[in-house]
Amino acid sequence: MKDIYIADLAGFEEGRHFDGYFLLLMKQARSTKTNKPYLNLVLADKTGQLEGRVWDPGDARITKDVERGDVVKVRGSISRFDDRLQMKVEQMRRAAAGEFDKADMLPATAYDVEELWRELQGFVESFTEPNLKQLLTTLLGDPAIGQAYREAPAARQLHHAWLGGLLEHVVSLLRLAERVAPNYPILHRDLLLAGVILHDIGKVRELAWDVGFEYTIEGTLLGHIQMGIEMVEKTMDALPDFPPRLRTLVVHMILSHHGKLEFGSPKLPMIPEALVLNFVDDLDAKMQAIAGEFDKCKREGRAADELTGKVWALDQRQLLNTRAWLEGGK
Amino acid sequence: MKDIYIADLAGFEEGRHFDGYFLLLMKQARSTKTNKPYLNLVLADKTGQLEGRVWDPGDARITKDVERGDVVKVRGSISRFDDRLQMKVEQMRRAAAGEFDKADMLPATAYDVEELWRELQGFVESFTEPNLKQLLTTLLGDPAIGQAYREAPAARQLHHAWLGGLLEHVVSLLRLAERVAPNYPILHRDLLLAGVILHDIGKVRELAWDVGFEYTIEGTLLGHIQMGIEMVEKTMDALPDFPPRLRTLVVHMILSHHGKLEFGSPKLPMIPEALVLNFVDDLDAKMQAIAGEFDKCKREGRAADELTGKVWALDQRQLLNTRAWLEGGK
Amino acid sequence: MKDIYIADLAGFEEGRHFDGYFLLLMKQARSTKTNKPYLNLVLADKTGQLEGRVWDPGDARITKDVERGDVVKVRGSISRFDDRLQMKVEQMRRAAAGEFDKADMLPATAYDVEELWRELQGFVESFTEPNLKQLLTTLLGDPAIGQAYREAPAARQLHHAWLGGLLEHVVSLLRLAERVAPNYPILHRDLLLAGVILHDIGKVRELAWDVGFEYTIEGTLLGHIQMGIEMVEKTMDALPDFPPRLRTLVVHMILSHHGKLEFGSPKLPMIPEALVLNFVDDLDAKMQAIAGEFDKCKREGRAADELTGKVWALDQRQLLNTRAWLEGGK
Amino acid sequence: MKDIYIADLAGFEEGRHFDGYFLLLMKQARSTKTNKPYLNLVLADKTGQLEGRVWDPGDARITKDVERGDVVKVRGSISRFDDRLQMKVEQMRRAAAGEFDKADMLPATAYDVEELWRELQGFVESFTEPNLKQLLTTLLGDPAIGQAYREAPAARQLHHAWLGGLLEHVVSLLRLAERVAPNYPILHRDLLLAGVILHDIGKVRELAWDVGFEYTIEGTLLGHIQMGIEMVEKTMDALPDFPPRLRTLVVHMILSHHGKLEFGSPKLPMIPEALVLNFVDDLDAKMQAIAGEFDKCKREGRAADELTGKVWALDQRQLLNTRAWLEGGK
Amino acid sequence: MKDIYIADLAGFEEGRHFDGYFLLLMKQARSTKTNKPYLNLVLADKTGQLEGRVWDPGDARITKDVERGDVVKVRGSISRFDDRLQMKVEQMRRAAAGEFDKADMLPATAYDVEELWRELQGFVESFTEPNLKQLLTTLLGDPAIGQAYREAPAARQLHHAWLGGLLEHVVSLLRLAERVAPNYPILHRDLLLAGVILHDIGKVRELAWDVGFEYTIEGTLLGHIQMGIEMVEKTMDALPDFPPRLRTLVVHMILSHHGKLEFGSPKLPMIPEALVLNFVDDLDAKMQAIAGEFDKCKREGRAADELTGKVWALDQRQLLNTRAWLEGGK
Amino acid sequence: MKDIYIADLAGFEEGRHFDGYFLLLMKQARSTKTNKPYLNLVLADKTGQLEGRVWDPGDARITKDVERGDVVKVRGSISRFDDRLQMKVEQMRRAAAGEFDKADMLPATAYDVEELWRELQGFVESFTEPNLKQLLTTLLGDPAIGQAYREAPAARQLHHAWLGGLLEHVVSLLRLAERVAPNYPILHRDLLLAGVILHDIGKVRELAWDVGFEYTIEGTLLGHIQMGIEMVEKTMDALPDFPPRLRTLVVHMILSHHGKLEFGSPKLPMIPEALVLNFVDDLDAKMQAIAGEFDKCKREGRAADELTGKVWALDQRQLLNTRAWLEGGK
Repeated sequence: MKDIYIADLAGFEEGRHFDGYFLLLMKQARSTKTNKPYLNLVLADKTGQLEGRVWDPGDARITKDVERGDVVKVRGSISRFDDRLQMKVEQMRRAAAGEFDKADMLPATAYDVEELWRELQGFVESFTEPNLKQLLTTLLGDPAIGQAYREAPAARQLHHAWLGGLLEHVVSLLRLAERVAPNYPILHRDLLLAGVILHDIGKVRELAWDVGFEYTIEGTLLGHIQMGIEMVEKTMDALPDFPPRLRTLVVHMILSHHGKLEFGSPKLPMIPEALVLNFVDDLDAKMQAIAGEFDKCKREGRAADELTGKVWALDQRQLLNTRAWLEGGK
Repeated sequence: MKDIYIADLAGFEEGRHFDGYFLLLMKQARSTKTNKPYLNLVLADKTGQLEGRVWDPGDARITKDVERGDVVKVRGSISRFDDRLQMKVEQMRRAAAGEFDKADMLPATAYDVEELWRELQGFVESFTEPNLKQLLTTLLGDPAIGQAYREAPAARQLHHAWLGGLLEHVVSLLRLAERVAPNYPILHRDLLLAGVILHDIGKVRELAWDVGFEYTIEGTLLGHIQMGIEMVEKTMDALPDFPPRLRTLVVHMILSHHGKLEFGSPKLPMIPEALVLNFVDDLDAKMQAIAGEFDKCKREGRAADELTGKVWALDQRQLLNTRAWLEGGK
Repeated sequence: MKDIYIADLAGFEEGRHFDGYFLLLMKQARSTKTNKPYLNLVLADKTGQLEGRVWDPGDARITKDVERGDVVKVRGSISRFDDRLQMKVEQMRRAAAGEFDKADMLPATAYDVEELWRELQGFVESFTEPNLKQLLTTLLGDPAIGQAYREAPAARQLHHAWLGGLLEHVVSLLRLAERVAPNYPILHRDLLLAGVILHDIGKVRELAWDVGFEYTIEGTLLGHIQMGIEMVEKTMDALPDFPPRLRTLVVHMILSHHGKLEFGSPKLPMIPEALVLNFVDDLDAKMQAIAGEFDKCKREGRAADELTGKVWALDQRQLLNTRAWLEGGK
Repeated sequence: MKDIYIADLAGFEEGRHFDGYFLLLMKQARSTKTNKPYLNLVLADKTGQLEGRVWDPGDARITKDVERGDVVKVRGSISRFDDRLQMKVEQMRRAAAGEFDKADMLPATAYDVEELWRELQGFVESFTEPNLKQLLTTLLGDPAIGQAYREAPAARQLHHAWLGGLLEHVVSLLRLAERVAPNYPILHRDLLLAGVILHDIGKVRELAWDVGFEYTIEGTLLGHIQMGIEMVEKTMDALPDFPPRLRTLVVHMILSHHGKLEFGSPKLPMIPEALVLNFVDDLDAKMQAIAGEFDKCKREGRAADELTGKVWALDQRQLLNTRAWLEGGK
Repeated sequence: MKDIYIADLAGFEEGRHFDGYFLLLMKQARSTKTNKPYLNLVLADKTGQLEGRVWDPGDARITKDVERGDVVKVRGSISRFDDRLQMKVEQMRRAAAGEFDKADMLPATAYDVEELWRELQGFVESFTEPNLKQLLTTLLGDPAIGQAYREAPAARQLHHAWLGGLLEHVVSLLRLAERVAPNYPILHRDLLLAGVILHDIGKVRELAWDVGFEYTIEGTLLGHIQMGIEMVEKTMDALPDFPPRLRTLVVHMILSHHGKLEFGSPKLPMIPEALVLNFVDDLDAKMQAIAGEFDKCKREGRAADELTGKVWALDQRQLLNTRAWLEGGK
Repeated sequence: MKDIYIADLAGFEEGRHFDGYFLLLMKQARSTKTNKPYLNLVLADKTGQLEGRVWDPGDARITKDVERGDVVKVRGSISRFDDRLQMKVEQMRRAAAGEFDKADMLPATAYDVEELWRELQGFVESFTEPNLKQLLTTLLGDPAIGQAYREAPAARQLHHAWLGGLLEHVVSLLRLAERVAPNYPILHRDLLLAGVILHDIGKVRELAWDVGFEYTIEGTLLGHIQMGIEMVEKTMDALPDFPPRLRTLVVHMILSHHGKLEFGSPKLPMIPEALVLNFVDDLDAKMQAIAGEFDKCKREGRAADELTGKVWALDQRQLLNTRAWLEGGK
């Protein structure tokens, strides 16, 4: 089983040897400035990814018989080149089926997926609007969709870019929406929560996560909003007597959840539930990005009272860890 | 039958009496500054609309029994108030069914709808791609959709805002696309023409044209792009073996035809046919707006070598009638 | 005491007489097209404002001795001019001090101000960070500031434009922030709540609410962000040993709460508490605007399943009342 | 004569030797990290350009006597450095005049320039407006201008960046405009075609194409719109009796052809011909960019059903080759 | 001679009679709500313009024989309608040539035009660069251009919209540029001043000022930048040996003086003199707008310590008169 | 004392040895691609900064005992790597206090600071408004502030990024403002000059210049506008009887001096002095950037008649040196 992870390697001194199982995301033949051929690799597991180099591709201990998507067993050591960590690979072979657990090979949520799934189902159970309840029960009860919903990342990069990320993001939003809803009596709580559960469901088709996280061509041409609406419309059409006005509102929630035309929502939120959905989605994504950034600083050993670097997901602004900075000032 | 039209009234001298049939678009009780009550009306027919006033609402010759949407017979005369034309209504009653032709009551295309329809069908006949041909034959062959497609305006105001406007706009685009396609060998001609025919089909649900032209609430919440995609997807799903990749491209054509996120297309055109569709749609709309503006100047008796007013549909720019101005310079 | 309110007048039939006390917001001598002089007035009370006309300014029953800002007793009747309601004033005199309650003369919160104030103080009581607690206790304990905080509107127009509006808005935000905070462990709850209480405190100087709601000249030149920071900085400077880093964060919260440079915050939120403050402030303002719009529709007797007009505070979008529309569809 | 082209080298295995003639676009002395001096070169011919390295600049077989702009004979081999192709140069001397054809040294249109020129002249022949016909005959009949018009690239990079590119672009536009014009009776066909021929004529002065393609300083300060207008105005002024209004319209066509102020046209198109010119120019440029991108993918051996990379000339969007993708789905 | 001016009429009590000479800018037949015909006029002189009404167009004392552009003698009185001043016209006839001075009829600079002209020529005299000196001497020495330069307004509305406004604006800029130039040794003082004198010269063709101030059609299609460049290029071409690089720089100064593409300059300023020209032009226009706004407040009798209304030429901001406000605070 | 400067090193041939004193801005342990450890340094003095490499970090002649911020004595030679200059460090030790002058270690103004300071004080002396004079005398008379004002750079990079840069920038602005003020009689000269002196005073806290130039965390969170206002407000509050309206105007000058919300000024300039301050500040910064760019071209030996590279501080535009280019054309 896997006991060395990408994230551990940053702490290794240069030259220390290790064996490990990794997913091969890229393999490319190159040559140095002085014409020496070598292999350039990208190796990944659930804790991250790292470049690797095979300096002697002809070595018999390096199998030729591997491809992008294979899990490989690697023996190598760590080197640093201009401050970037690299893996120097000395032996490499394809791993056999029983040697590894696929779940270790792609970044995955730190939470228990089944628990998150039960929490989500608990929310559905609590619905009093029967049509929305039936819609969600039917849709999430579809085995293929339910399975994909539990596996899908919420994004290719940025926030929640890991297996189970979609589910983790949705459950976090459900908790937040459940807290916000009672503050505004005009809100239709079940419609809001249904919108939370359905808003990103098209991501199970927009993204592929077999080998790394990629957009499908269909996803690039249509986007998860359109794809999600299609899935939800089909389910509503299959239900006898789903109320047509409720159908329109559910589609509107998905359609408008990015909040602005230039963010890919062709309609602005025009009902209170759609407005709140857009806010909590945006807030939660940003708070996760901030928390992730602070974690990264801690991992990288920065002083508590420094600003972070410029954060892409927050318009290139720098952030400050409130508590750590206040501590540092004492 | 109708022999007096709104458009004729501009030429009448003040005070001349007339009888006519008009569609009642609005009726509202008001009172003057000196507290005299009166009725404010908006009356329409296929040539335009006009405000009307009933200065003595208690007069027995004015029926109380009419509502927005009724066709009424009116006796009145023309007056001008601060340069705006108005109808002074002296008698008004609801018209009986046989007294008028409904087609006279809303603005309608100047072309023969059946001829346009045959031209459109001729284009479909000419397709060599069998799946697209079947899709269009099925969809337009649906009696309700076919009927709505022939009636719908292309917009509430702006360009082609008249009965049959959608069909007229689409046929003009088909002619243009058929001319442009051979210039670029990479274009899939049938896919381009299918995109032209389908791009605005959602307008048959986004708009209502019973009494004036209005957006439906569903249309305001979802938009014609989303509504059109739903119609087309349902038809494709009902066809056995419609190729999935072709399905994706057809949906992408509709989805991206506004050309920019801020114009309500959540995806940019990413195939050549979608790019060309966006261009010809935009060009044709602008050329119709220009031609309409020049006609309006002529009707209003402006000198040939003046600029038009600022045109809303063309970013508030003024336009100059090339030929007329060159003529004027001789 | 006052028993006729502006809001009641809309329901009166034309010509019905009434007596009432109103605040005179504007008085202007004009003449009609035919050179007849008249007075144009704007009269207000806590339920709204209305134009009034004195058609015979020379009438002895119309005192000359009133000015903007006076409360007047008026006898008059209702008329409508081109659909706009007007008051026809037949008698007018200055009201004596004991005749009216000033609280009736400007729009005011529907909530009990003292109860809101106690709720706010309860939040301050609950703080565990001693410096923030002392800061708020000191600042709100200043009699002039405490009084102004309870009276000030939150805006000149738009959201919460009524006496007590600032307090009402802040308490609503406190409740929301208290709900959101536990969802994100990185949040410093007391700093967030302190930011909520202080973010708009400059409005007690930016706005004047003696006679209607107006910006002061100082408020126009400096803005409530700058004015609020000055107030808070002075208080912190007067406290012995207020920690300098905490001081910086408090100022940053106020400075950045509009969330974007183009909205008047010269710095983006750079700590999690500032980000959340910006979100809840924006969300609450929009939800209040929506609720207000739905109330207005109800008051104006619109059908439950219509869209509202275009709402200025929500980028000119139209809104739909979810529950009412769903009801209407049954 | 030249038999090895830059485009061929990508297919060579590393280390294979070749001799070839290339245009020297850049020559620079550098040294490696370990202080070894070397020469960095950019070598070009009509199929592209490539970096070269001289690792032993003191070698007697490397002439010192060459400069930017010279054609050189090179003996070398191919190497790859971090995935980028490079030429390792072992011998280099200046080529003698008779050894090469200058036309091989810069990218040039794939079409027969004389045929394109005759096609353009055929369009001019077809004009019925005598003044425009004379203007074009005179201007293009000027030997210096005619020669430059046939040679000039249409841009420094982006679309049609090759010798003859201006002419190729204009002829493609003429064909398109000739197809579009009959669809809109308000169009003055000869004015539209004259605009097509003249719109980019200033590029013969804005760009220099002796050694690579560069902007002249005058071109950078004034731009091709201004420079073209000057050329055309001078020609019109030299013609007796060129109608002043027609003169204004011709200048307006050139001035406005970029369609927006932010694209460098100080006036928006205000006549129908100018509007159509802007559309066809934009459409043709984009269609050429797409076709070029698909060719590049084919050359690079990408799978038919992949998206292209992000295309700079199309707002960084990715594109999909319709036919290839549909084929791939069968 | 003229002794009653438009600006005086605001101070007249209603009903007072007067006789005066005015320029007729508009004449239009209308009728009232109750069908009474009347004439609507716009009358102007150098101090402003005013609407007029002829309530009895059939009256023999009202000549039918006048048209837009005529100077008329009017007998009438002042009335106010909804706060807008109007002239009630009782008699009107065309004025004879000797009765009035045309200079009284359009707003004109308050300065002595000949003195301004001498000051401008003094600047030209001071040039040490002989080519620029000759260019300006030749161009301004052209009688038609020199005359137009002295008469032209600098704009249709906004800043310097009066006869002589162009000259007044240019002389103010020359003084400012002469002050700024010595602060920056890299500046070519004569080139900067030449740019100041030439930057708006195209306005003599873009605008017409016979009857009110209007854009010509040519001006609307081409703009004063393009028109000015054409005038200056022709003059430079007629001078033997005008240095070509200097020619390019002069054209660049005119071309870039609006400073941004979206303001109609297709090139940004790329030499220091062009940058300074853009700054002083913008600063002077804004300072004149501010001074004009303060004058207007004074004329309208506003309190010294009020903000102005929102000023269109300054992005709708309000302004405060520093000195007056400080005075008011004492 | 220091006799070798960073700026001199560019002229050294490779391999020549030198000894020098430099400020250590960065020190980082790295290793090469082949795992050889080395030290990467950044060394600076008042003429610039340069990367350095220690290829043998274990060498006894390289002290381990230095940190960021130390001044070190270095023996080394020059090398070039891919066109970038580097210092090869062979010996390095911490410099003793008496060995160097700290003023040599950071870039500093080329002017005499004490002379600039006297010139600034001369401007203050010339004030006739007593309150402003006292404000400035008090504030600049504070020893800590006066010292910091003389030392502070005006920016971290861009314009005036050197010790004394703030003072140099302010004095240049004072001269310019003193020239511009008399051209506009509405200007309050002392208020304008006070604004010039105070507008950037917050930079003494926003920036730190002990070791290189950096933003402080407080500076990043609050910005120099806010920090400057706080300093000035405290000083005004400490003066008895500083007029409140003048106080508001002074704060407004600082608050609005960036001229646009998106540049970080939450209010637009609303008094003439604030408008002029924004203009002269912007103009002076741009002219310094241009002059600096031309100097750089000269230092880099570019031909006089070339365009510069794209200049970041001027919206990426290229610039042309007017005089040099005109010379080159002769």
